[in-house]
Amino acid sequence: MSFCAMAAPVAFIQGASRGLGLAFCKHILKNKTPAVVIATCRNPDGAAELRELSAQHVGRVTLLGLDVNREEDIRAASEVVKKDFKRLDLLVNSSALLHPSGKGETSLRDVSAQGIISTLTTNTVGPLVMAKYFAPLLQKGGGGFGHQPEDEAKQHSGIIVNITAKVGSIGDNGLGGWYSYRMSKAALNMATRNLSIELGRGRPKVLCVSLHPGTLDTDLSRPYHKNVPKDKLFSTEHSVNYLMSIIDSLNISRTGKAYNWDGSELPW
Amino acid sequence: MSFCAMAAPVAFIQGASRGLGLAFCKHILKNKTPAVVIATCRNPDGAAELRELSAQHVGRVTLLGLDVNREEDIRAASEVVKKDFKRLDLLVNSSALLHPSGKGETSLRDVSAQGIISTLTTNTVGPLVMAKYFAPLLQKGGGGFGHQPEDEAKQHSGIIVNITAKVGSIGDNGLGGWYSYRMSKAALNMATRNLSIELGRGRPKVLCVSLHPGTLDTDLSRPYHKNVPKDKLFSTEHSVNYLMSIIDSLNISRTGKAYNWDGSELPW
Repeated sequence: MSFCAMAAPVAFIQGASRGLGLAFCKHILKNKTPAVVIATCRNPDGAAELRELSAQHVGRVTLLGLDVNREEDIRAASEVVKKDFKRLDLLVNSSALLHPSGKGETSLRDVSAQGIISTLTTNTVGPLVMAKYFAPLLQKGGGGFGHQPEDEAKQHSGIIVNITAKVGSIGDNGLGGWYSYRMSKAALNMATRNLSIELGRGRPKVLCVSLHPGTLDTDLSRPYHKNVPKDKLFSTEHSVNYLMSIIDSLNISRTGKAYNWDGSELPW
Repeated sequence: MSFCAMAAPVAFIQGASRGLGLAFCKHILKNKTPAVVIATCRNPDGAAELRELSAQHVGRVTLLGLDVNREEDIRAASEVVKKDFKRLDLLVNSSALLHPSGKGETSLRDVSAQGIISTLTTNTVGPLVMAKYFAPLLQKGGGGFGHQPEDEAKQHSGIIVNITAKVGSIGDNGLGGWYSYRMSKAALNMATRNLSIELGRGRPKVLCVSLHPGTLDTDLSRPYHKNVPKDKLFSTEHSVNYLMSIIDSLNISRTGKAYNWDGSELPW
């Protein structure tokens, strides 16, 4: 089996109505012709920018409703993709929340069981359940993203990208706080590692990595920008440029790790 | 403030009806006289061994009902301890489950949102919510466990021990599988790290570590023993001997890390 560009690559962007997910859609539609994009969010009717994108790129955008907290939604979306596309080349798990209150815990006093569970459900459980339902489609992928080595035995059929965060690195954690968010991303990194092992055995191979997008000028992180130097505060477009260049360079030897926006490896 | 042994040290063992938690109670009652033990489990009426222990060590055992999945139970237990003991020297978070089905996931096919959420709730959310309610009591502790350095500024008032697992180390993960359990312990390690930072600032200092008990001859791991050499399969008593010798050696310079049963540091 050789992964030639026989058919247009298929990218699935989960959490695409705004922020990083939306920027991934725009980037792929602009720079990865003839790739097609399946874009999901909780409420496609309210996703004006996605609808506009779909109108601009006729026949290249499929909009689906998907709440990553609902396994039933995920299963249903996987069936649509199976029926309409039969395969997948790239899955990006992008949606995340800092905390249901909108504010990361600054101390233990702010911690609540329900707050942690909600954060873990969206940021950690969602991406893993996505992988469960989409792995079979990624195993049928054409390897349209990433860098294929000449050795066919080392080629990959698909890639899973879990958007992580540097604050999800346990070893890098020197400040504390943000309990729910940090824990959700540490657990997500474990999911990435586990997925890379299970899906990297034998053939076809599906790669899985965690990527840190840098500090973004988005709703999630805007209240926490005061200590970030201006040149390290990225627009989502800028960040996705970096992340797509990492994705372009991925092959099986780089699976199962967490990478910073600049391509350097993050400690667990 | 100097942490002299003015009063009997108080240890709180959460998940004490069997396994490692029960062995911690026995060890402390036998080897740490005059320390007292607050032992909790979901159903104290059914905890025959704990009741026997309480009868053997009159006045040294307090039995409380506590379901670590219920924040209300945790809050109520902290109020009992506050009223009856006013402080705490050691908190051991011991209860954990492999998966609600009783069987770790061997592949993605076995993954379900509800299975991961249940595992995370018991193994990860529970210990952190415990820390929330008991940190103020540990800050009033007498430093009765661990090794106190001469420099008063570096002395600690209390210790939190989260029972982790080597399979919760992302860096050490070469086999995959056991998604829920591995993710729950990775997230717990992040909680340990965060707690060590928040509670290690200023004074009084509370230490927090994750400890891996080795492979135990308990219900949780018994089905997975076939590849474990006989001399690396520990009884809970044997394991607690190791873990208590680590706890005895702890001081503020060793906080915020994960340790193997032999005292070596585990990678995150």
